[in-house]
Amino acid sequence: MDVIDILVTKRDGGELGPEQIDWVIDAYTRGAVAEEQMAALNMAIVWRGMSRAEVARWTDAMLRSGERLDFSDLPRPTTDKHSTGGVGDKITLPLTPTVAACGAAVPQLSGRGLGHTGGTLDKLEAIPGWRAELSPEEMRERLLDVGAVVCAAGAGLAPADRKLYALRDVTGTVESVPLIASSIMSKKLAEGTGALVLDVKVGSGAFMKDTASAGELARTMVDIGNDNGVRTVALLTAMDAPLGRRVGNALEVAEALEVLAGGGPDDVVELTVTLAREMLTAAGPTGGKDPADALRDGSAMDAWRRMIAAQGGDPDAPLPEAAESRPILAPESGTLTRLDAHAVGVAAWRLGAGRARKEDPVSPGAGVTLHAKPGEQVRTGRPLFTLHTDDPERFDRAAEALAGAYEINGEYDPLPLVIDRVG
Amino acid sequence: MDVIDILVTKRDGGELGPEQIDWVIDAYTRGAVAEEQMAALNMAIVWRGMSRAEVARWTDAMLRSGERLDFSDLPRPTTDKHSTGGVGDKITLPLTPTVAACGAAVPQLSGRGLGHTGGTLDKLEAIPGWRAELSPEEMRERLLDVGAVVCAAGAGLAPADRKLYALRDVTGTVESVPLIASSIMSKKLAEGTGALVLDVKVGSGAFMKDTASAGELARTMVDIGNDNGVRTVALLTAMDAPLGRRVGNALEVAEALEVLAGGGPDDVVELTVTLAREMLTAAGPTGGKDPADALRDGSAMDAWRRMIAAQGGDPDAPLPEAAESRPILAPESGTLTRLDAHAVGVAAWRLGAGRARKEDPVSPGAGVTLHAKPGEQVRTGRPLFTLHTDDPERFDRAAEALAGAYEINGEYDPLPLVIDRVG
Repeated sequence: MDVIDILVTKRDGGELGPEQIDWVIDAYTRGAVAEEQMAALNMAIVWRGMSRAEVARWTDAMLRSGERLDFSDLPRPTTDKHSTGGVGDKITLPLTPTVAACGAAVPQLSGRGLGHTGGTLDKLEAIPGWRAELSPEEMRERLLDVGAVVCAAGAGLAPADRKLYALRDVTGTVESVPLIASSIMSKKLAEGTGALVLDVKVGSGAFMKDTASAGELARTMVDIGNDNGVRTVALLTAMDAPLGRRVGNALEVAEALEVLAGGGPDDVVELTVTLAREMLTAAGPTGGKDPADALRDGSAMDAWRRMIAAQGGDPDAPLPEAAESRPILAPESGTLTRLDAHAVGVAAWRLGAGRARKEDPVSPGAGVTLHAKPGEQVRTGRPLFTLHTDDPERFDRAAEALAGAYEINGEYDPLPLVIDRVG
Repeated sequence: MDVIDILVTKRDGGELGPEQIDWVIDAYTRGAVAEEQMAALNMAIVWRGMSRAEVARWTDAMLRSGERLDFSDLPRPTTDKHSTGGVGDKITLPLTPTVAACGAAVPQLSGRGLGHTGGTLDKLEAIPGWRAELSPEEMRERLLDVGAVVCAAGAGLAPADRKLYALRDVTGTVESVPLIASSIMSKKLAEGTGALVLDVKVGSGAFMKDTASAGELARTMVDIGNDNGVRTVALLTAMDAPLGRRVGNALEVAEALEVLAGGGPDDVVELTVTLAREMLTAAGPTGGKDPADALRDGSAMDAWRRMIAAQGGDPDAPLPEAAESRPILAPESGTLTRLDAHAVGVAAWRLGAGRARKEDPVSPGAGVTLHAKPGEQVRTGRPLFTLHTDDPERFDRAAEALAGAYEINGEYDPLPLVIDRVG
């Protein structure tokens, strides 16, 4: 095998063969293909794309670069969800115990946030005592006794993707549907789930700004999953406005608890129930109850408490709160017609909820409370947002991010939360 | 400046500004932009190309990464030639002293060969005692006393290009007109010539296989030269068959001596005289004689002898010969209608005339003698080629390269040697 042949083939628009893909991923992971060679290949892939066969093999080669968990011998079917990331997207928190309460098991490996969207592990780490690091054996025990586990991916899973992602990040090669899809799917397939539901976000607060590119990403990931023997479907869901009314780590845990208690914002409840039903359908018959019932009858909350306690968390401990709060008042009365998810995400990030570099800490209490959502009434001089931070010097920059982020009494054209389904 | 901005701008088809180009070339030379980042940028340039303004600035930034020689205070105008490389292309050898005999000075920095085309320095190093390494002061002295110098480029000239070329070589990013043009021109502009004639080769034995791509390369380089204050023209010349009748280092020196003695193959003489006239015209009036006269009256040969002696060479020493020779016989009688330059180049390379890696030595005596050129008669059982090597184990692989390289009694459609002029 010659890396120059592979580079020139892709550069000139040709298709890479399975042996070429296996070789280049393995040689790169071992260091026999240099960073600069893989960087050039990534840019050629951004340019030329990959066929369905190429992207399936690329994902499989990354998957085979490390260990793959296997929970197929558990008494329950396994099923998981992955979201491409949105502002206020705390859905994993109520969703995972809800699905467990309905009879399937959820083996979720999750990540920390970078940039304006938060990470599920950052949110759960706002709970006193909760820890993200579990061994595969501990993961298996949690699936057996609780039916749900959310933990950090170990270094042994898809190490090729870990190395490749760091390279793409510094070489302007993040924006490629096949590279994004194979990166996500190699990690999700490594966690050993039998079924997978993808929540592909579309809109200002999402990585994919329009339905066409989100649909292409969804289609590519669904094909990869099914080609690799995991029953996979995707929903395209709206991310023009934030999900729910709270953005920030502990703030989102609190909102998730409202949902698990049978209340909470309509959009969070709707998406939790919709995704839970998709996950259960993809898993196959469990004989369990419907997710809406599990939220109503307290069984989802029971599963949550067991899940948190099993990873060292105290479900009864008070959640951390930020030291300082400041309201932003509505400048006029009327209907809130636009609320930009990206701007709210940036504001929460600037308040301390997110990180700029991987090694930065996050502030558990920081974030933004939304007092109105699009379609709701606001009144002059009443709070539109409340900002929360431990460092009052952060207020001004967060307020700047929100300055052009909303509109009152403009045109209001509500879009459905679930835009499309790719199965 | 942010390298990711620069990468994303070019990746998305935008134009880089002058400050961005200056910064990225300087930062790469210093090591502040990583190899993998420059590799991704190179692939994006292969994809998106560069505007005339971008490529001029890119060249200028590489030029400014090192020292630039200046011979503008010499009593004679300076002029030089660069060839993009062909098989049997020994034109620099008779050309340089011929132009000196006609009143201009030629400050040529040249290189060694890699792959199937030879390097001028490899050819001159076949002359006992001749040395390629001169300091800028020695170069100036040779221009003053002889009027011609061919020597190796010092490490201080266009160091950015040196680093970038090594990177392109291993990342599949050699094949890009703006990257090729800026690489060549940054080195030629650094040598301080006042005028430049480019010999852009087209055909099977050349890097550019067709007239359109060769014309684009010629136009790009001519624009760069003129934009940087060097009077520049280009000729597109044929490289389907080898130039002359000898391919290999000492073999080509011997053929150059025939031309300097007033004889030699018609194509070598024609190209030498044509390029010499272009170089003199670009240099401006010298009051000297015509190149054809300089070859006829011995003054070009006198300049050659002075030029070789001034760099330690013995112009009267016998040239090295290979230890072994083997003829390849014509399988039928008739007209030779095709002789593939690339195949002859590969055969000479396999016999030891060229190198596979930069650090390999070359064999001065190895190569191929051509007993017939396209349009000439051949007879069954008479030699078509003679192969020369120091290592008889190399004969078979060289003969293999020549097996399909010629045709007898096919269609013969002779093309002009000089295909086009770009000025």
